[in-house]
Amino acid sequence: MEFDESLDKKGMKAILLDFPNQFAKGLEVGNALVVAAKPRKVFFAGMGGSALPGDIAVACFPAASMSVHKDYGLPNGISKQDLLIAVSYSGNTEETIDCAQQALELGCPIVAVASGGKLKEFAERNGIPFAAVPKGIQPRIALGYQFAACAKALEAAGISGVSNKVLEVALFIEKEKPAVESLAQQCAAASFDKIPVLYCSTELWPAARIAKIAFNENGKVPSFWNVFPESNHNELVGFTRFAEKFHFFFLHSTDDHPRVKKRMQITRALMQEKGATVTDLELKGSNSMQRIFYSVLLFMLAGYYTALAYGQDPFPVQMVENLKSALDK
Amino acid sequence: MEFDESLDKKGMKAILLDFPNQFAKGLEVGNALVVAAKPRKVFFAGMGGSALPGDIAVACFPAASMSVHKDYGLPNGISKQDLLIAVSYSGNTEETIDCAQQALELGCPIVAVASGGKLKEFAERNGIPFAAVPKGIQPRIALGYQFAACAKALEAAGISGVSNKVLEVALFIEKEKPAVESLAQQCAAASFDKIPVLYCSTELWPAARIAKIAFNENGKVPSFWNVFPESNHNELVGFTRFAEKFHFFFLHSTDDHPRVKKRMQITRALMQEKGATVTDLELKGSNSMQRIFYSVLLFMLAGYYTALAYGQDPFPVQMVENLKSALDK
Repeated sequence: MEFDESLDKKGMKAILLDFPNQFAKGLEVGNALVVAAKPRKVFFAGMGGSALPGDIAVACFPAASMSVHKDYGLPNGISKQDLLIAVSYSGNTEETIDCAQQALELGCPIVAVASGGKLKEFAERNGIPFAAVPKGIQPRIALGYQFAACAKALEAAGISGVSNKVLEVALFIEKEKPAVESLAQQCAAASFDKIPVLYCSTELWPAARIAKIAFNENGKVPSFWNVFPESNHNELVGFTRFAEKFHFFFLHSTDDHPRVKKRMQITRALMQEKGATVTDLELKGSNSMQRIFYSVLLFMLAGYYTALAYGQDPFPVQMVENLKSALDK
Repeated sequence: MEFDESLDKKGMKAILLDFPNQFAKGLEVGNALVVAAKPRKVFFAGMGGSALPGDIAVACFPAASMSVHKDYGLPNGISKQDLLIAVSYSGNTEETIDCAQQALELGCPIVAVASGGKLKEFAERNGIPFAAVPKGIQPRIALGYQFAACAKALEAAGISGVSNKVLEVALFIEKEKPAVESLAQQCAAASFDKIPVLYCSTELWPAARIAKIAFNENGKVPSFWNVFPESNHNELVGFTRFAEKFHFFFLHSTDDHPRVKKRMQITRALMQEKGATVTDLELKGSNSMQRIFYSVLLFMLAGYYTALAYGQDPFPVQMVENLKSALDK
C-alpha cells in the first residue's frame, strides 16, 4: 500500500516521531505542581486527549485511589481532602474549567496542566500550581508532555517512583520506534476500508481505547474498543452479522490471565469464521505503562497512515472545529 | 416493515412483555440476602447480563461507594470490610466464581444471586446468603429478577429506599409497555441494515450500554455506545467517513445538562451532514432508574424485532455457546 506523505501539511509525522522526547520536557514543567499535603484521593478532570493522562495513571497505579472525571461539574463523593489535577491542552475546555471552578469553591487543593488559555488564567488568579506544556500541537499528540507533568503531581501527592517509570517509558518507546513505524503501516493497510475494533485485557484498557481514538482522530474513521473477558459475554454475538465490515486488532500481553489468552484465541477463530479479518499484536514492554505507551505510539502512527491511505491530511479535526463554533453561537 | 413472529421459537416476546413482573419476584427472593454489618463499600461481581444490576446500581446511587468487577480475581483496594454481591444467572460463570472464591479467602462478607449452578453450591457450602432467581430464561432477560434481588442486598447494606424505587419502576414500565412496543418496532426498522450506535449523557450511561448489548444479543448485530460530552472530543471525528453505515439513537433526558442538550443537537446535525441517520428518543421516567429501565425494555424489544427483521430467532446466542464449548475443551 502507498502512503502519500505530501498530504501531511502540518508535519504531523515529525511530531509523532518526536513523541518520546515529550516526557523529559513534561517532567520538567511538572516540577511546578506542588501539593501541600497528601490528599485522601486524586481526581483528574479532562476531556478527550486531555483525559488520557488520568486514564493511564488509573490503569498503571490500580492500588492508588484515583479517578477521572469527563463531564461538567464535580464527580460524586469528592471532599476538600481530595486533589484535583485539571488537564486541558488548550486551556479552554469548558467541562474542565467548570469542574475546576466547582472544586475551588469546595476548597479542594488543585493543580493544573495546560498550554495556556482560561485554565492558565484561572490558575494565576487563584494561586494554583500550574504546569505550562508547549503550545501549538493538538491534545492527542501532546500526551507525553501532559502525562509526564501529571506524573510529577502524583509524586507530589505521595505516589512514589512515577518519574522513574516515565523516564523508562521514554527510553523504551524511543528504542521501539523504528520497528513500530513499519508495523503501523501494516496496521493501516490491514484495516483499510474496514472499521477497526481494538480488544485487550481489562487491566490494559487504555491501550485499546487510545488506539480507537487514534483511528478516530488521526485516521478520521469510525473505530471501537472493548475488553476481555467482558466482551465475550455480549459484544461477541453481535458479529453474527456484518463481521466482514470489521478488522479486529487483538492486543496481547505476556501478563494476560491464562483464561483471557485462551478466550482471545478462540474468539479470533470465531470472528474469522464469520468473515472478519484479525491482526494479533503483542504489546511490548515490561509493565502496564510501557505496554500502553507502546500502543499509543503504534496506533497514533497507524491512524496517521490510515488518513494518508484515504487521501486525507491526518492533522485537522474538522468535525470538532465545526462543533466548537456551533457551541459558541 | 414486516416482523415474522413465527421465528420466535422460544416465546421470547412473552418473556420480554412479562418483564415488569420480574421485579416483585426478585424482591421476594432477595429477602434472603442478609448482611450482618454495614460494609465499608459494596462491590458487585458479574459478567454480561449479570453485571447489569451492578452497573445500574452504580449509576442510580452515585453517592454510595459501589463498583462492579467484570473479570477474574478481586478488584484492587478490597478489604474484608467490603461486601461482595456475586451475580451469575447460570451460577456457572467462571470469572464470578473465581472472584467469589478469592473474596471468601480474604474474609469479605458475601451474598449471592443465581438460578442455581456452582454459585448456589458455593453459597450452600459456605453459609452464604443466597437468592434463587427463577431458572430457564437467559441472563440478559432476567435483569428484573436480578436487579430487584440485588436491591434487597443494598438495603441490607444500609442504602435505604431501594425497594420502593424498584416497585415504582415496575409500575412505571408496565404502564409504558404498550407505547414502547410500537416504538421498538420503529427503532428496529430505522436501524435495519445499519450499525446502531447509542448515545446518552454520562449520568445515564447504562441506558446506552444496555441498549447496545440488546442489539448485540437479541438482534445479533454489531452495535456500539458512548456518552456525552466525552464522545464529542474524539469519537465524533471518526464519522468523517462511513457515517452512512450507522444509525444513531440519541437518548435524551429532561435532566441532561443544558450544554449536553446543545451538544447533542449540534452533533445530530453534523452526523446527518455526513450521511448518517438519527433517531431522537426521550427516555421517559422521573429518575435515573426509571429512565434506564425504560431504555432496557425499549431496546430489548428493539433487539428482538431486529432479529426478526433479519429472519433470525432472537433467543439463541450461538457464538457464545460455541465459545463456551471451546473454552471447556
